[in-house]
Amino acid sequence: MAKVHTESVARLVELLCGMPGVGERTAERLAYHILRLSDEEAQALSEAIRDVKAKVRQCSTCYQFAESDPCPVCADPRRDRSTICVVEEAQDAVSIEQSGGYRGLYHVLCGRLAPLEGYEPEDLTVEDLVRRVAEDEVREVILATDPDMEGEATALFVREALAGLAVKVTRLARGLPSGSQLDYANAAILADALEGRREMKK
Amino acid sequence: MAKVHTESVARLVELLCGMPGVGERTAERLAYHILRLSDEEAQALSEAIRDVKAKVRQCSTCYQFAESDPCPVCADPRRDRSTICVVEEAQDAVSIEQSGGYRGLYHVLCGRLAPLEGYEPEDLTVEDLVRRVAEDEVREVILATDPDMEGEATALFVREALAGLAVKVTRLARGLPSGSQLDYANAAILADALEGRREMKK
Repeated sequence: MAKVHTESVARLVELLCGMPGVGERTAERLAYHILRLSDEEAQALSEAIRDVKAKVRQCSTCYQFAESDPCPVCADPRRDRSTICVVEEAQDAVSIEQSGGYRGLYHVLCGRLAPLEGYEPEDLTVEDLVRRVAEDEVREVILATDPDMEGEATALFVREALAGLAVKVTRLARGLPSGSQLDYANAAILADALEGRREMKK
Repeated sequence: MAKVHTESVARLVELLCGMPGVGERTAERLAYHILRLSDEEAQALSEAIRDVKAKVRQCSTCYQFAESDPCPVCADPRRDRSTICVVEEAQDAVSIEQSGGYRGLYHVLCGRLAPLEGYEPEDLTVEDLVRRVAEDEVREVILATDPDMEGEATALFVREALAGLAVKVTRLARGLPSGSQLDYANAAILADALEGRREMKK
């Protein structure tokens, strides 16, 4: 392919390409969007990226990204310390937090069991989770890994690691996504929904 | 909604959100991806954004983004100076350049006629195009605006502006996209394909 981008544009495209959901065409679109930003806007973006790396660290307790250690959730006396919700990645905890229905603590595994992607058990923060559960008065660990093959394998692995401790281990429900239509659900979703069916009270 | 992001993450999400194809969820994913980059990678991205704004300017002839003025295309003696391809945005010229089939010059309009989006005729670089065509020995202007309503209106507007000059004005062909399947084409595509049908030589 001919050299079509100027050098600094090519460099930016290269760095953007490969970010989540960003292929080469999207990277080009983003780069040209940045070219059309005002100098102040581009400066702000450049600084925000530098800032986020300079200010944000992982909480030494739960591994969530935060500007303080412990993070605001771990430091909040109003949170229910007897429950820990285990997620694969930091932003999964953010999603659960945004849902507004959870008042316990979190534990970020920082990955999933996926040997093919290069994730091995020792890359995950499972040992720290076991220590937290053993040392603090944790009564329930909710496994909120993804509802797919790797997430399921990861949940089983964490379940095993916690087997020696007197703690209840639960897994998020699988079933029909709220707000969806039944005829858009695939076989796996329907099988989960049937398997997990609940009796309705009279 | 509860304050779920730390301050510098929220700032980054806010700046990323609204870029092409980037909604709030994607912005969050990108922000957390940046958090997981090494310090060096994040620094490189931050600098690439600063660099691209510092080094890249618009070519004073064709309005393409470039690190030199005139841009490499306008400065290249091997390009066919008798043909100008008119595009809405800089990256449209990049797409055409990547196709490898064009050896003429470009002219970036820096927008399209879209009064509802706030684009008016005077925002476009049409006057400069008219001057180029009148002063240089341009024999053909290819209108390569988008094949949609605004792109068509823009093409008609440019065609009008060039009406007084002895130059051939052409428009990119519309029809079936190469490599597609006929039964995926919508009515408008099929109408264009029929309208533009060509006789096959024996």
